[in-house]
Amino acid sequence: MAYVAINGRILPEEEACLSPLDRGFLYGDGLFETLKVVGKRVFFLDRHLERMREAARFLRIPFPADLDFLGIIQDLKKKNEITGEASAKICLSRGRHEGSLSLYTPSSPTVVILTTQRASTSPTDWDKGLTVTVEGDVHQNDSSSLCRLKTLNYLPYLLVRTRAQEQGFEDAILTNTANEICECTTSNLFFFREGRLETPEVSCGLLPGVLREALMKCMEKAGEPVREVKLAREALPSCDEIFVTNSLVEVLPVGRVDQDEYPVRERTRRVLGLFQAYRDTLHGD
Amino acid sequence: MAYVAINGRILPEEEACLSPLDRGFLYGDGLFETLKVVGKRVFFLDRHLERMREAARFLRIPFPADLDFLGIIQDLKKKNEITGEASAKICLSRGRHEGSLSLYTPSSPTVVILTTQRASTSPTDWDKGLTVTVEGDVHQNDSSSLCRLKTLNYLPYLLVRTRAQEQGFEDAILTNTANEICECTTSNLFFFREGRLETPEVSCGLLPGVLREALMKCMEKAGEPVREVKLAREALPSCDEIFVTNSLVEVLPVGRVDQDEYPVRERTRRVLGLFQAYRDTLHGD
Repeated sequence: MAYVAINGRILPEEEACLSPLDRGFLYGDGLFETLKVVGKRVFFLDRHLERMREAARFLRIPFPADLDFLGIIQDLKKKNEITGEASAKICLSRGRHEGSLSLYTPSSPTVVILTTQRASTSPTDWDKGLTVTVEGDVHQNDSSSLCRLKTLNYLPYLLVRTRAQEQGFEDAILTNTANEICECTTSNLFFFREGRLETPEVSCGLLPGVLREALMKCMEKAGEPVREVKLAREALPSCDEIFVTNSLVEVLPVGRVDQDEYPVRERTRRVLGLFQAYRDTLHGD
Repeated sequence: MAYVAINGRILPEEEACLSPLDRGFLYGDGLFETLKVVGKRVFFLDRHLERMREAARFLRIPFPADLDFLGIIQDLKKKNEITGEASAKICLSRGRHEGSLSLYTPSSPTVVILTTQRASTSPTDWDKGLTVTVEGDVHQNDSSSLCRLKTLNYLPYLLVRTRAQEQGFEDAILTNTANEICECTTSNLFFFREGRLETPEVSCGLLPGVLREALMKCMEKAGEPVREVKLAREALPSCDEIFVTNSLVEVLPVGRVDQDEYPVRERTRRVLGLFQAYRDTLHGD
């Protein structure tokens, strides 16, 4: 039996009750964060909460600043008997629908926290690398500020990911309306090109991940700052190495984009090493 | 106390329990329909269910064809002591998250049905007409087939509507990436231009409403078929009359678009008369 937390209360899933009038359900009117938990460490928790608070301010969802997120995640992990690595998901919705569609309606927000055991990224995953296709039809809606927020409106990503899997790939690269590279469905993209480490700039229309930001800080500290660029879809083959980042995999090489192989991992491996050292100085070991 | 229905069971809202792992909540992975109920009549129920079934097939959500939707709506309305007009909302989500993000994951769907008393459109509403602005920043994502489905990912519409209200308008007209007119946030658009009744074509990137379709059938029967067009945003002032349609208001004139007034209601009123007669031949009176 799995335990979940609703508004700070830890309950067996069967007893944890969301109102069918919750605006998270009716409209996807809410936000989420996914965090990596190893032992007692919840990586970049403060930054995740800060990002959620900023997005909540934009959407005018009250942020429950008094919740002990760290304590709840640790208690949940223990209750769920998770050993080793876990993912924690924090969902914040506007709460019960009170009749008006407006985002200005006063509301009592809902916070759901889930923890799930997960396997660490293995050396085989790393050697193989992620296989991705470039999504040809659906573009990121770069006109909308919502594409920069991690909202509960996640269906476009699920659709694009499923279409990629149908074609034998693990994930897809999304482009914007100008055919510039944005991101994958659950990760940000980085590439080595002409000796420089680059990543698509936020204005291309992407969700700026907490890991993306941390990696950029780490590389800045190492004296090799990441350059934010606009990269046309056609320029992908000119990249020497490509990798993705998100809070769970941290850094994972891309092995193939459509028919183009990216067998070299050397510089990506070096970035991973730098990043892990940086992360461990922040979180202890 | 309000009653709601979950998977066919009618329960007081407090006892109606949605799992916090429902994919409708976690990802907006689901669909909805809004229907008008007057007395025992649920307008265009079959067509709403057919549209939901088609969209569910696209998203690979099992459609619960054996549910007695009509009976549930009528029982709910009675339980909720609704007299006069009501709206009924049917939500269908993929159900509990089983670990995979894919849309191909087998699942047991969740059906939520809600009923709410509502005031009929008054002659004053009609005389005043709806005030709308043209949304300048956020475009409809016309590259995505999802914009043609009524999914639980409704946040972009809520954001655009709230921004419009902040500027003193009731709603906003959305345009696509080519700056062509699409729709309002909860209704479709029709306009009289050069003596013809027109509406934006579906390929512009809009949610083709059940009312839009019924009105087009009605006008075809009346020998005055609606022309589906691409209309540039700049062409709006050349329209003589503009109105919106959705299942609840059916037909409602637009009184103002930004600073341009549309005081004439004559032809719109005639369309309403034709439509009400058509609808009543289908549903009795």
